[in-house]
Amino acid sequence: MKKLINSPDTVLADALRGVAAAHPELSVDLENRVVAAPRSETPRVALVSGGGSGHEPLHSGFVGEGMLAAACAGEIFTSPTPDQMLAAAQQVSSGAGVLFVVKNYTGDVLNFEMAADLAREEGIEVESVVVADDVSVEDSTWTAGRRGVGTTVIVEKIAGAAAAEGRALADVKAVAERVSAAGRSMGVALTSCTVPAVGKPSFDLPEDEMEVGVGIHGEPGRHREPLASAHDIAGTIVDAILSDLDFTGAPVIALLSGLGGTPLIELYALYGEIAALLEQRGITVARSLVGDYITSLDMAGASLTLVRADDELLGLWDAPVETAALRWGR
Amino acid sequence: MKKLINSPDTVLADALRGVAAAHPELSVDLENRVVAAPRSETPRVALVSGGGSGHEPLHSGFVGEGMLAAACAGEIFTSPTPDQMLAAAQQVSSGAGVLFVVKNYTGDVLNFEMAADLAREEGIEVESVVVADDVSVEDSTWTAGRRGVGTTVIVEKIAGAAAAEGRALADVKAVAERVSAAGRSMGVALTSCTVPAVGKPSFDLPEDEMEVGVGIHGEPGRHREPLASAHDIAGTIVDAILSDLDFTGAPVIALLSGLGGTPLIELYALYGEIAALLEQRGITVARSLVGDYITSLDMAGASLTLVRADDELLGLWDAPVETAALRWGR
Repeated sequence: MKKLINSPDTVLADALRGVAAAHPELSVDLENRVVAAPRSETPRVALVSGGGSGHEPLHSGFVGEGMLAAACAGEIFTSPTPDQMLAAAQQVSSGAGVLFVVKNYTGDVLNFEMAADLAREEGIEVESVVVADDVSVEDSTWTAGRRGVGTTVIVEKIAGAAAAEGRALADVKAVAERVSAAGRSMGVALTSCTVPAVGKPSFDLPEDEMEVGVGIHGEPGRHREPLASAHDIAGTIVDAILSDLDFTGAPVIALLSGLGGTPLIELYALYGEIAALLEQRGITVARSLVGDYITSLDMAGASLTLVRADDELLGLWDAPVETAALRWGR
Repeated sequence: MKKLINSPDTVLADALRGVAAAHPELSVDLENRVVAAPRSETPRVALVSGGGSGHEPLHSGFVGEGMLAAACAGEIFTSPTPDQMLAAAQQVSSGAGVLFVVKNYTGDVLNFEMAADLAREEGIEVESVVVADDVSVEDSTWTAGRRGVGTTVIVEKIAGAAAAEGRALADVKAVAERVSAAGRSMGVALTSCTVPAVGKPSFDLPEDEMEVGVGIHGEPGRHREPLASAHDIAGTIVDAILSDLDFTGAPVIALLSGLGGTPLIELYALYGEIAALLEQRGITVARSLVGDYITSLDMAGASLTLVRADDELLGLWDAPVETAALRWGR
């Protein structure tokens, strides 16, 4: 295992110190492993997310104006605890309620539920949205139902913009649920990833094979097959997503995320194939993002997310955002 | 070799098609392999850069408002031709001259010189700045003098902002040269990279060693040593850079770039060590960037760039920018 770390035991704490140094506009609570934006001075719905580490920039890279108010980080591929989630909610609650954005993994869901109860006991109004967008498999190693993957990024951006507009908690939750229901994802791994504390690849993948429908922790996907061309991989992913939801007749937001170990030139080569295929199928990509947004440590591969949007959702997507990993102003 | 490509012969063209699909605001000339922003409607200095592919997002990811007007792409790790550079200059010249931003590799320097001559013959005023900021080695596989690396990103941002302000070519060039002279970089590789057309790693690096001072094409650095902790690697890089230029008493811009195969959580862990060390040495980091900005395909590792800035350069750094890989508005 070759990693730029001090030790597997300290990588998360060390990385959080780096986040604090690189982003003085954020507050980093090293004890609770919470990265937070300044609390809003006027009452605003605060979006809080979190999950196991190793998927960066998700979630801490999306903390800032117009997106998440706070993110809490578990150990690598391990849910944060309810106490961490509660601490995050307490740090950013400004009186208008908190929306938890939860990826559908059993530990995360249970812990966010407990955290919601704890927060309510302290007088904080809490709602949750659970993202379960991965079409690859029903149920999985750590999941009942579908796994939550790339649509989470888009939920965080769009619901974050709704919160920044001053909308009420019920409305922000409704927007988040609309995005969540309209998003579908699927990924392909060319290699495994290596969890620092384990020190060896999470799974074996022969030199001439790929894992179709891999999970972001290296969970098995649908099947393995011989390593295919970018063109054929695009076909496999796009077919799987389009057979699950109709994306015609609406503006679509497309996110092609690298899994951590894939160079950008390959991501763009794959995206070119995906875009051509979507056009052939009569699907209009209105907005796109290509890069590393939801990763699996050093895994080589990519995942595609499509969200069936509308004018309101596009407007919220376009609203200014200023985070470490996603920012624009208009 | 496991890559998300169609074939080694088409990866660059395929990637450019992906860039065109993902960034409709840019024009992509597939024949000349030029990615360009719209030509300015008023005369503005146009920054043009380019180089071998495989370092993405450098340079095409930095084309847009407030940064590069155009970038031309060579094959992987191979300089573009003078004709490509000329085509780029022609596409974006708006009457106020063109500044070529050149990384110091022999092929790039020669070709940009020829392109400058060709452009002048067509009546385009051209100046060039050559970036040679890598403190690792004097002369190298493809370089006379120091190699040009991460400072290039900062030159492109700051000189691009100066051009956007409407400054004259001589002034934009002077700003670019000031940044170039004030920047120093050094990188460390934990693994090699694999050039698609070669199909195997560019060099062998034992499982327990790292290459200190590696070049962005895998050129040898200063020496190999046993794989060290993030803390010790930070010390090695920071010492090498600080012993080459005094960074005290001025605001410093710090860029920690992954080399393509290193997860963000590791980059932040390393950045935390670097930031602590710089603080101990009495150096003030005024601005920082952590992520993949100048890469070497799938190489694991990172490179640090420090630029000794001043209020004027910071102001230009902070100016709005809107490119695929770097954007902010204020």
